[in-house]
Amino acid sequence: MSYIKDNFLLTNKTAVRLYEKYAKNMPIFDYHCHLPEKQILENKPFSDIYEIWLSGDHYKWRLMRNYGVDEAYITGDKSNKEKFVAYCKTLGTAFGNPLYHWSQVELKDFFNCELEINEENAEQIWDWCNEFIALNNITPQKLIEQSNVSHLFTTNEIFDDLSTFPAIAQKGYNFKVIPAFRADKLMGIESPMYKTFMEKLEALTGKIANLDDLEKAIEQRLCDFIEVGTTASDIAVEYVYPITEKGEANAVFEKALAGAVPTEAEAEVFKGYLTYFLFKLYAKHNIATELHLGATRNNNSVMFAKLGADTGYDGMSDQEVLRNLTKLFDRLNSENALPKTIVFNLNPKMNSELVVLLGCFQSGEAKGKMQYGPAWWFLDNKVGMERHLQDLTATGHIGAFVGMLTDSRSFLSYPRHHYFRRILCNYFGTMMERGEMTQDEAFVGKVVEDISYNNSIAYLNMK
Amino acid sequence: MSYIKDNFLLTNKTAVRLYEKYAKNMPIFDYHCHLPEKQILENKPFSDIYEIWLSGDHYKWRLMRNYGVDEAYITGDKSNKEKFVAYCKTLGTAFGNPLYHWSQVELKDFFNCELEINEENAEQIWDWCNEFIALNNITPQKLIEQSNVSHLFTTNEIFDDLSTFPAIAQKGYNFKVIPAFRADKLMGIESPMYKTFMEKLEALTGKIANLDDLEKAIEQRLCDFIEVGTTASDIAVEYVYPITEKGEANAVFEKALAGAVPTEAEAEVFKGYLTYFLFKLYAKHNIATELHLGATRNNNSVMFAKLGADTGYDGMSDQEVLRNLTKLFDRLNSENALPKTIVFNLNPKMNSELVVLLGCFQSGEAKGKMQYGPAWWFLDNKVGMERHLQDLTATGHIGAFVGMLTDSRSFLSYPRHHYFRRILCNYFGTMMERGEMTQDEAFVGKVVEDISYNNSIAYLNMK
Amino acid sequence: MSYIKDNFLLTNKTAVRLYEKYAKNMPIFDYHCHLPEKQILENKPFSDIYEIWLSGDHYKWRLMRNYGVDEAYITGDKSNKEKFVAYCKTLGTAFGNPLYHWSQVELKDFFNCELEINEENAEQIWDWCNEFIALNNITPQKLIEQSNVSHLFTTNEIFDDLSTFPAIAQKGYNFKVIPAFRADKLMGIESPMYKTFMEKLEALTGKIANLDDLEKAIEQRLCDFIEVGTTASDIAVEYVYPITEKGEANAVFEKALAGAVPTEAEAEVFKGYLTYFLFKLYAKHNIATELHLGATRNNNSVMFAKLGADTGYDGMSDQEVLRNLTKLFDRLNSENALPKTIVFNLNPKMNSELVVLLGCFQSGEAKGKMQYGPAWWFLDNKVGMERHLQDLTATGHIGAFVGMLTDSRSFLSYPRHHYFRRILCNYFGTMMERGEMTQDEAFVGKVVEDISYNNSIAYLNMK
Repeated sequence: MSYIKDNFLLTNKTAVRLYEKYAKNMPIFDYHCHLPEKQILENKPFSDIYEIWLSGDHYKWRLMRNYGVDEAYITGDKSNKEKFVAYCKTLGTAFGNPLYHWSQVELKDFFNCELEINEENAEQIWDWCNEFIALNNITPQKLIEQSNVSHLFTTNEIFDDLSTFPAIAQKGYNFKVIPAFRADKLMGIESPMYKTFMEKLEALTGKIANLDDLEKAIEQRLCDFIEVGTTASDIAVEYVYPITEKGEANAVFEKALAGAVPTEAEAEVFKGYLTYFLFKLYAKHNIATELHLGATRNNNSVMFAKLGADTGYDGMSDQEVLRNLTKLFDRLNSENALPKTIVFNLNPKMNSELVVLLGCFQSGEAKGKMQYGPAWWFLDNKVGMERHLQDLTATGHIGAFVGMLTDSRSFLSYPRHHYFRRILCNYFGTMMERGEMTQDEAFVGKVVEDISYNNSIAYLNMK
Repeated sequence: MSYIKDNFLLTNKTAVRLYEKYAKNMPIFDYHCHLPEKQILENKPFSDIYEIWLSGDHYKWRLMRNYGVDEAYITGDKSNKEKFVAYCKTLGTAFGNPLYHWSQVELKDFFNCELEINEENAEQIWDWCNEFIALNNITPQKLIEQSNVSHLFTTNEIFDDLSTFPAIAQKGYNFKVIPAFRADKLMGIESPMYKTFMEKLEALTGKIANLDDLEKAIEQRLCDFIEVGTTASDIAVEYVYPITEKGEANAVFEKALAGAVPTEAEAEVFKGYLTYFLFKLYAKHNIATELHLGATRNNNSVMFAKLGADTGYDGMSDQEVLRNLTKLFDRLNSENALPKTIVFNLNPKMNSELVVLLGCFQSGEAKGKMQYGPAWWFLDNKVGMERHLQDLTATGHIGAFVGMLTDSRSFLSYPRHHYFRRILCNYFGTMMERGEMTQDEAFVGKVVEDISYNNSIAYLNMK
Repeated sequence: MSYIKDNFLLTNKTAVRLYEKYAKNMPIFDYHCHLPEKQILENKPFSDIYEIWLSGDHYKWRLMRNYGVDEAYITGDKSNKEKFVAYCKTLGTAFGNPLYHWSQVELKDFFNCELEINEENAEQIWDWCNEFIALNNITPQKLIEQSNVSHLFTTNEIFDDLSTFPAIAQKGYNFKVIPAFRADKLMGIESPMYKTFMEKLEALTGKIANLDDLEKAIEQRLCDFIEVGTTASDIAVEYVYPITEKGEANAVFEKALAGAVPTEAEAEVFKGYLTYFLFKLYAKHNIATELHLGATRNNNSVMFAKLGADTGYDGMSDQEVLRNLTKLFDRLNSENALPKTIVFNLNPKMNSELVVLLGCFQSGEAKGKMQYGPAWWFLDNKVGMERHLQDLTATGHIGAFVGMLTDSRSFLSYPRHHYFRRILCNYFGTMMERGEMTQDEAFVGKVVEDISYNNSIAYLNMK
């Protein structure tokens, strides 16, 4: 039987009470994820546990590779069941890894299965879950509603079809689905796909012959997004390039439009300007910016050629980014054009320096205008969250924190919100029991509710 | 009622005994602070709690901004009472932040007030403290003596008036006030204020026409400081520039004297040489150097224009500094000119690498000649101190540690020494109870006394 | 009496059981150390405790310097006994330092002495140990066998005499001694010793007139090593230089052969190519690579001139290394020439980014093909190991971990394996007692056995 008990991650009674009374039943606002909105609209039942769990989850693939599992059992030609068994075997000894917890919790929460995940139990779990799925008609809607989600933000490219969102709104689901605006593809000017991206955009906005046109097209699309409810944008960058002047950036852009591949230096000139432009645009439309900082992409070129992007070969950047980020924020702030910003950082060594930097650009416009986003991706685990809370509270203000998201492609990932809430309640409960915090549980409970849900709802203007 | 109890931060009985028997009653030597010596001399009573607590404390301002408090309630035109209430509201939910602890402790220690700080109690605390202040004639002298301070080092610019110090000495206070020598203003050759600084210096030392003259003027002033008791100097740099040759530096200096603004590269040439010169000078006069490393200053230019420096807009540098610092220490050491040095580091990710580097330049000249200074500024909090102790003990020698200081502009900040001592005693007590250290409490107690007071007294040649 | 008890570092009953039942009695495979194989062959009894403990141990020297001990008592002209007493005094208050634990454990394990190490007991310990040594005929063989070592890898330069290894094999010891192959001296093309190194190599392999010859010579020597059992190689670099083309590297090499001292840039060109070549060669011969990353050497030039290398003046690098390391691994992987690699990292801030990077280059070739090596050198201590386990498990797979080594020059250092095992068992035991892991002790016990011994044996192809 599974080791997961009711008091999972709660090491003292105060923590248990905080979690049970204040955190557990708060709804979920998942303000950044990668769920495919079309799948939510279509709402087809899932076929088996492999499809739900393993078919697209590169977190799990990476763990299997770390254990030495052959690729045939991961993305190769082995059967779904063989792959599932290989995953269970891998997970059995992955002590300390977040998947070791998440998968076990998901099994219990969504399939009512308490078997411990390991090689020995793999077949039994396979049978149990597939029987459960067959009997219960598991759909995206069902999984999301069961998880008590009130709102979720998908991540959409600038040229994505937005008609799915009003269509979802008419389905009568208990939750709202809203796209976050992402213009990242337009930044990758050195990409062989850039021409294709531009053509997609032009099909929606008309001919783009220079940077002026591009800016207008971006704003036009942002307004389209806003019409379907968008209040947040997303930028993912490995590095923050220095701000450049529009003229320089335009020269690079026109050259690229004319078919030339920009040099690395030219691409940086373009990205430096476009990053600045996007922030300004978001400020103008009161759109919060979710800045995802420091992921290196597709580090294994052999596997990239075979499997493409988002397959488990990304990494953390170690580059110093503070000077350029400071200049970016300071310039925007000087022009009264710094939007609300949530900075997601992937390298834990940079936690403290970033929390402190954000403290230099706060203002009375919002409770926690400049947010240090939650422990994310490679840091979305117990020690990552605990360090994040320590680093955030040491020089920031926890009461203003917008809390957790999933950043996930999986409909089963909502328990991560509860994973975070347990760690948060344990952090507060431990300090309370040690006499390092107020003993007023109702007062602390209110802060728990705010961080679990209310702060992000207010920050992102959801009703 | 406040959550702060006698055993605050002491999680086991051994820790309690260590603190009560060995740490609590040791005097305080605050070997680096920013108290204004003139205010100590004048010794005027404070008018209200706002003046003592909030009027100049950018730590508190930053926390309020992090919470989204409007600037009107921080440095703006709201009344002192409104600002005080806003601070209490901010603090109420700032769990984990050091101010959450410090302010509560200060309220108890200096105003005998046990009310928990939050919005609800704000008015009551306001009234209580102001009544207390009115009744008790609270002066700088009283606050310092009540805190059992034996010596404190103010931080003084090279051209500061030193007559205040003998005047204080004649007042019959129970503590000594001594200036630490700071030549930082002379390093900022690119500053628009540089000419003014030079004129101030020239007024004390005579005409300065070149780098030779500057060196003589600096040494003359250092000797003036030594006459009033100085045994320490202070250098605060964001970055350690490579050592340059005097000729190059002189060229930049003469150009600046002639009215030209040096380029960034020229300024670095000048700073690289001057840093080296200052260390040599301090070695010659057996003056310890307190090197404050890695603060980025005035990151928000809008607010800098409004409020000036030291108003809560500084940050941590993330720049690699080790190679240049190694070369600096090695060159000085090779020339038999490396003074006793305390390195204060602001970015916690650099703890280990710096402790190890300092270990390469120790010698028998002093117990812990090269000191890794205590957790400082943004790290002056529970987790920052705990990590500092872990990182220091792992590759350094805790027995030689000179311990805590306040680095503060506030007369109420001495409880930070006790905050540190509690964490230190808890660190030792926990290891003792776990069987990871000697069980001889008197032996450990001696080390606690040394780190609390005796080591810094010996290191800085105080009697 | 010493504070070290049976349950040292084991804070709960599950941890105690895991250690006692599964970890304690596993043999030791020390897959990287610096023991001198000739001393193992000669097997002469030690003369006194100074010789065994202090004569060559720069970890201890560094600690003494950190405490302010005069060099006369470290490497100078004081008597062995005076030096020993100075060490005991230093150690007495070195709470939290690994030597504080190691020395106390060694005293108990090897000399049956339970006296606490401090100044007061120093003479008594001196007498006890020396009497013990005189009575018991302590030899290298005895110390190694008593420690239950099955295999150990010495670290040998490419031109070392290999005849010692078959000679040891004939001695009938209970353990195997095998050299790891190290070509580092050939990378240091800027060294004044380079000519000497080349001559030594040429004496074994014939004339080397260009890079082709060098490559052949290296491969020839690697084959000689393989004949005496080698399955691992070692590369220690401060920094990973970009891969360069062979032609460029050859130009630098020929210039150096002709007597010119290469510039820093030229040396980097050579090192960039040679690193790449060595990895390829190791892949070809299925030799695992132990990459020791980030040590800065001989930072104190005064002491280097006096004492030479490996005397306690090395440090941690803070340089960003990820981009070049990623490119190196990706290029090798693209050419199907990435060997099994263990990355040892010296700067703890780089833990997470490196674990994640290694996860991008795993494959089904081995259980944990790309290993994040154990906490090493400056990190070989309690907090270093605990952070290592946290960082490794958060994004890697602990079940595949090859575990501990000593990296030591001392025959008394094997208790460090048990130090690690205790911390490992405590890590697992604590998670088990908190309900964060399976409750199946036998299942966890198997993982403990694997990490203690079986994984490294399998990884390095020992029988």
